Amino acid sequence: MSSLLVVGSVAFDTLHMPSGSFEKVLGGSATYGSLAASHFAPVRLVGVVGRDYPDSAIERFRAHGVDTSGLEVDATGDTFHWEGRYSEDLGSRTSLRTDLNVFATFNPKIPAGFRDTPFVLLGNIHPALQLEVLRQVVKPKLVVADTMNFWIGGERAALEKTLAEVDLLVVNDEEARQLSGVNNLVKAARGLMTLGPRIVVIKKGEHGAVLFEGDEIFSAPAYPTGEVVDPTGAGDTFAGGLLGYIASQNDLGNATLRRAVVYGSALASFCVEGIGIDRLAMVKRAEITERYAAFRSLVHFASEAEVAG
Amino acid sequence: MSSLLVVGSVAFDTLHMPSGSFEKVLGGSATYGSLAASHFAPVRLVGVVGRDYPDSAIERFRAHGVDTSGLEVDATGDTFHWEGRYSEDLGSRTSLRTDLNVFATFNPKIPAGFRDTPFVLLGNIHPALQLEVLRQVVKPKLVVADTMNFWIGGERAALEKTLAEVDLLVVNDEEARQLSGVNNLVKAARGLMTLGPRIVVIKKGEHGAVLFEGDEIFSAPAYPTGEVVDPTGAGDTFAGGLLGYIASQNDLGNATLRRAVVYGSALASFCVEGIGIDRLAMVKRAEITERYAAFRSLVHFASEAEVAG
Repeated sequence: MSSLLVVGSVAFDTLHMPSGSFEKVLGGSATYGSLAASHFAPVRLVGVVGRDYPDSAIERFRAHGVDTSGLEVDATGDTFHWEGRYSEDLGSRTSLRTDLNVFATFNPKIPAGFRDTPFVLLGNIHPALQLEVLRQVVKPKLVVADTMNFWIGGERAALEKTLAEVDLLVVNDEEARQLSGVNNLVKAARGLMTLGPRIVVIKKGEHGAVLFEGDEIFSAPAYPTGEVVDPTGAGDTFAGGLLGYIASQNDLGNATLRRAVVYGSALASFCVEGIGIDRLAMVKRAEITERYAAFRSLVHFASEAEVAG
Repeated sequence: MSSLLVVGSVAFDTLHMPSGSFEKVLGGSATYGSLAASHFAPVRLVGVVGRDYPDSAIERFRAHGVDTSGLEVDATGDTFHWEGRYSEDLGSRTSLRTDLNVFATFNPKIPAGFRDTPFVLLGNIHPALQLEVLRQVVKPKLVVADTMNFWIGGERAALEKTLAEVDLLVVNDEEARQLSGVNNLVKAARGLMTLGPRIVVIKKGEHGAVLFEGDEIFSAPAYPTGEVVDPTGAGDTFAGGLLGYIASQNDLGNATLRRAVVYGSALASFCVEGIGIDRLAMVKRAEITERYAAFRSLVHFASEAEVAG
């Protein structure tokens, strides 16, 4: 079992859901990513919070085996606060507030003891900051990066610089199309590979995820649930679960990557069942095992030989 | 092995593709559906064509084991002719012409020898005509119906009457949402089941298809191809391949239905590789077997027990 480094945003989210409003729940890409990964492997968290961030929240990370010594507390301001409203069917959301606060000047410092972490998850932050992290780590085995339309549109040059040093890129389907300029997702993935990453995982929300590595393609469904409560953080959870599992196996074979995509999908399916991190943080290993098995059933069909036999 | 009855439109399609224009190629829901099904089981085709429909095309059906004695030739007019233009990325299309011609007065007559066909595919035609077919067949084992947004929006009452007598409904994701009034696809499928069908298959194009039967859910990916030439008829091909396989097995177990979804997906993946029916009609059994195996590889991941073992 290896450990992984998770760098990204640590935030408060105020969520207006059809089921009600939830003030300043724990959020941010590194929060979801590190809690998801912590189900599989020891996590080293790097991020910044403000003077208003409660010790109890930091304690919560620690209780999940997350090393928070890289979580900077900047007493000059408040924690990043995002507020948004979801549509009735949870299919879209509108940002009402994005107070970056101390995150505006975040400059990730990787503690000396974290620099040789073999697995690195660059959460969805400015690509220049992602590159800053890579300048500080020493020969990681696998660098996974997430990004979003905001950077693809506005910080293309910086993003391309970062991508050149990324091994595995996680993007959603719209971002894959935007970044590659190609509509067909297979061609889009091939295009993204020319930018650097040798592995590309395209997240498709309710339609699952697709893994591309060389000529290998693996298609994973989403867990079919009628009970989505809050989609916030599902993508970050997917990436965290994915890399957490890879770190736990300390293996980069395609078979491991395939299982990692399923574990990431499984954790994302739990994440959306609760508000914020509520369900994700509480999920038991036995539940993950059960859901992993459910993914197997979901895609199972007999081979021609089995039918003939 | 049982035979299946396919009822639907038989048409000429004039296709304006990024790769060029193709005048009056063979098309229509029953054409794609019956050719797809013919790879697995004997097909009985019911439809109407006009005086301009060439004998060579009818001969082509026969060469595929399709019984064309229910294909009416109406010498009072021309064959249904649809013309459309696809977008550069093939993601959308615009209808330029819909000349119903002899199809405008189509009233399906099921030949006496066809009335006891155990498996019935109601292609995408007016729901009142679909019901007409059901009034003429005798205790089919399984009735499969396809429909589209046009009937959902404009002929809701007729459609509901038909659905009450359908066993397996095939719709795409937008249609499932429109017909059920629910955005979440799992809930949408459950909603559709209350309208009659005990089995629902939701087609999601590049995202695959999902089968719902009771509490069983099966998720099949689409074949990941960068080489889509012409998406016309892919949905009809899927339905034809699905029911053709079921008829070949003469079995309605969930395991058979799962495999049927994969065979339908496999044939649809061939269909889009050529203009019109070109690739679909030419595909060899060995190619279908190979692609079926590719679908298995595409979704394969080890169980926890296999990994631990």
